[in-house]
Amino acid sequence: MYKILTDQDIEQLASMERMVQAIERCLREEANGTLVAPPRFRVTTEKGDLVFTAGAATAFDKVIGFRVYDTYDNDVDGHEQLVCVFDSDTGVFQGIVIGNLLGAIRTGAIGGAAVRALARVDAKQVAVIGTGVQARTQLAAAVAVRNIQRVKVYSRHREHREAFAREMAEKLHVDVSAADSSRACIEDADILLCATNSDTPVFDMDDLKPGMHINTVGPKSVNRHEVPLAAADVSAVIATDSLEQLRAYATPHFLVGTPHEHRIQSLADLVTGRATGRTSTEDITLFCSVGLAATEVVAAQELMKM
Amino acid sequence: MYKILTDQDIEQLASMERMVQAIERCLREEANGTLVAPPRFRVTTEKGDLVFTAGAATAFDKVIGFRVYDTYDNDVDGHEQLVCVFDSDTGVFQGIVIGNLLGAIRTGAIGGAAVRALARVDAKQVAVIGTGVQARTQLAAAVAVRNIQRVKVYSRHREHREAFAREMAEKLHVDVSAADSSRACIEDADILLCATNSDTPVFDMDDLKPGMHINTVGPKSVNRHEVPLAAADVSAVIATDSLEQLRAYATPHFLVGTPHEHRIQSLADLVTGRATGRTSTEDITLFCSVGLAATEVVAAQELMKM
Repeated sequence: MYKILTDQDIEQLASMERMVQAIERCLREEANGTLVAPPRFRVTTEKGDLVFTAGAATAFDKVIGFRVYDTYDNDVDGHEQLVCVFDSDTGVFQGIVIGNLLGAIRTGAIGGAAVRALARVDAKQVAVIGTGVQARTQLAAAVAVRNIQRVKVYSRHREHREAFAREMAEKLHVDVSAADSSRACIEDADILLCATNSDTPVFDMDDLKPGMHINTVGPKSVNRHEVPLAAADVSAVIATDSLEQLRAYATPHFLVGTPHEHRIQSLADLVTGRATGRTSTEDITLFCSVGLAATEVVAAQELMKM
Repeated sequence: MYKILTDQDIEQLASMERMVQAIERCLREEANGTLVAPPRFRVTTEKGDLVFTAGAATAFDKVIGFRVYDTYDNDVDGHEQLVCVFDSDTGVFQGIVIGNLLGAIRTGAIGGAAVRALARVDAKQVAVIGTGVQARTQLAAAVAVRNIQRVKVYSRHREHREAFAREMAEKLHVDVSAADSSRACIEDADILLCATNSDTPVFDMDDLKPGMHINTVGPKSVNRHEVPLAAADVSAVIATDSLEQLRAYATPHFLVGTPHEHRIQSLADLVTGRATGRTSTEDITLFCSVGLAATEVVAAQELMKM
């Protein structure tokens, strides 16, 4: 019988360690050519659209399905993303996830796969910039894949960063404290998680240290990006979960058209060892999260097994 | 809050009269140019596909959504169609219908709209050939739009037609009897509903009488069609719910490439009076049901209001 899961169910169920593993299997399918991910599809009206990202992972997870979300720009309650999952061997309907949390968990898990592939093995300290749901899932995923001892969080609003520190310390059982500045947050960090809505860079290049790994989840367009372009200049490795999607944005990605564009690695190649990641504990590494299609479907199926 | 409806809910809820009215509103939107119905979209794997028919009716029903179904050819339990519905003014999620019954009810309601547009106003007797779920919903819709006194049903298996007669008499409160032959079934009928899986014509041209209206819901391809091509030759009016879909089949529709192709009327034009239907009580009329996109979504939203 199929399952219907909502945000409340997922809040209870989700094991970030298992979600990261599911994303890594999905990346292996991408590298193996068994991931099916057709271009996005839209139904368009004057007031807004429905957008479909569909996909299938046919070798390991044996799942086919899609995510659908609306682009209506209003504050009316009741907007929901749907992720529907079917068995890719039989076509049998397995279930639906209704709500907006799965998207953040899946993006967190992609970030966790990037941390596992690129951050120093001995990484102990995380800096988080941003305090929204994406910042929370990025941190949960980083804690799931590295032996993290200490976390600092910064955002412009004191009450937000203090609430984040309290809640995430309790949830993840690690030492989380609020920092008073971006500089204080980043100091001594091995992993820097940027998950903001900022139009401008959220850290100063002077604060970056050798050996750091950076995830950027927030704005990454040529017009507005939370990570300075100079961070790409000093990065030994730059990676993304979907080169195709990175090149497909209507407003170009901030690395498209720069000398970096053609050295961006596919996370799938890093996870499967087809590409070389970090070669020194001093390397700076940068991961640009864009959202590989089919990962939502694999993540939703994994939740249904929990 | 959104609704989740299954076949059991729909069985209880569905008022065929209201479903036919919803389809007629949808046809008016089609005629008015406010129906959005992009081509079908597929996710393809080696073993099977997911197919999406999406659409929106933005003027009257203010609904946007889609149907999704699988093409996996197996007998495994658990195949389900999904129809997801959103408000086309706000993008707010309204609900989902899970199951295979809605499709048959919607096709029945389209058939009911065709009967209302084309059958004689004084039609009293219905012949049904076929005893599956499509035959049931076609009959329910015909009974909803005309003052039907008597129904005869024929199919090859006696037990099927007798069970159909018993069940539909009880459900629709009309006189339904099983006939021993196609000829006996059709005799004296004003409305002939064909809803079979037959590769070959299910009635003899000699049995057609002036004034009859025919709905064909089953096979209609050039290779296999349940209605004889000669029935088109004697029909004063031929109509379909989607000329675009009728011309888009991989295996051509049995009227495509014949002299009839260019006189097929759009049901939307008949419902809105832009095209002329029956002009005499002696006319034979023929409706070829193909499945106008967006009708599923309007039908699902109507069910959610019940």
